[in-house]
Amino acid sequence: MAKIDLDLIQKLRDITGVGMMDCKKALQETDGDIDKAIELLRKKGAAIAAKRGANETAEGIVHAYIHPGSRMGVLVEINCETDFVARTEDLKKFAADVAMHIAAMKPMYIAPEEVDPKFLEHEKGIFKEQLLASGKPEKIINQILEGKVQKLYTEVCLLKQPFVKNDQLTVDDLLKQLIAKIGENIKIRRFCRFEIGA
Amino acid sequence: MAKIDLDLIQKLRDITGVGMMDCKKALQETDGDIDKAIELLRKKGAAIAAKRGANETAEGIVHAYIHPGSRMGVLVEINCETDFVARTEDLKKFAADVAMHIAAMKPMYIAPEEVDPKFLEHEKGIFKEQLLASGKPEKIINQILEGKVQKLYTEVCLLKQPFVKNDQLTVDDLLKQLIAKIGENIKIRRFCRFEIGA
Repeated sequence: MAKIDLDLIQKLRDITGVGMMDCKKALQETDGDIDKAIELLRKKGAAIAAKRGANETAEGIVHAYIHPGSRMGVLVEINCETDFVARTEDLKKFAADVAMHIAAMKPMYIAPEEVDPKFLEHEKGIFKEQLLASGKPEKIINQILEGKVQKLYTEVCLLKQPFVKNDQLTVDDLLKQLIAKIGENIKIRRFCRFEIGA
Repeated sequence: MAKIDLDLIQKLRDITGVGMMDCKKALQETDGDIDKAIELLRKKGAAIAAKRGANETAEGIVHAYIHPGSRMGVLVEINCETDFVARTEDLKKFAADVAMHIAAMKPMYIAPEEVDPKFLEHEKGIFKEQLLASGKPEKIINQILEGKVQKLYTEVCLLKQPFVKNDQLTVDDLLKQLIAKIGENIKIRRFCRFEIGA
């Protein structure tokens, strides 16, 4: 088995947030290729998350973040399956990270499915006008439009946003990692963000 | 001028939340009649509040209350006119009181004007059915219905609810007192309340 450099394990851990032992295993399985190891860890996390995804989440915690100066604040509700997990440090840390992320990144929705259709149509209309002015053929325009919508989701949807403390991950990646680590389905149920003058 | 008993002043203060000196003055003006003194203080507070009510409120604070156990939390935004007032203990205490009130009393809206018309029609429909079954004349029914709607507002609208720490006041009374004391327009702009499983 390949000997894996500790710095590389640490780097993989920094990028993915996964534990040292799992990072080491992933690097051994991919012969020290960090990109393949990232991919491997994501797939593992996603597979566990998918298995857990159907379980009911009726427990959880409500967490608040008030920005220094009290001109901005966030309230977020995280759901999990059991009261036991609701009381873990892992869940508290996740809730605190997500609340701080929301404070900084100002998402409007949790997931693409929740985006207000009127807002989406309005944004698409603006994109389309810009693209039509370019004189490109319609097939190309529709492809670009789809790309622009995906990009819009990474701006306004919490789960699609790059995580504020590690932009190699989306918030959804962070959530899937936590599900994989804890072994329970976990959901970000709802949030609100108030800012004076906004 | 009538000599006013200290216990009576303290009682008036407990009921209205107004300062000792103003309570004493009000009792002197009403010859020690506590009910008239309450009325007088409310009118004074309301008059000052009405004068201030048109002023723009672009400053303020965001305050959170997390109930012990983290299964329920409230976020509230209080607006005022100046940054100076936003930093006062009075405003912080008001924000904390309102957040705790919301946690306990579960309002759905801030004011009657904000009540969802669909919700109102649904509730009115239920009231009306009950009343029609009683066989009373329509004029009476409409009067009773109006009373029932006003009562509904005291249950679902934050400003109309009796204040949780002193049910002699509504939250709107508390707000008007603060406006009268501080001398600036103040508004409860928005709130949210999350509870696990609700």
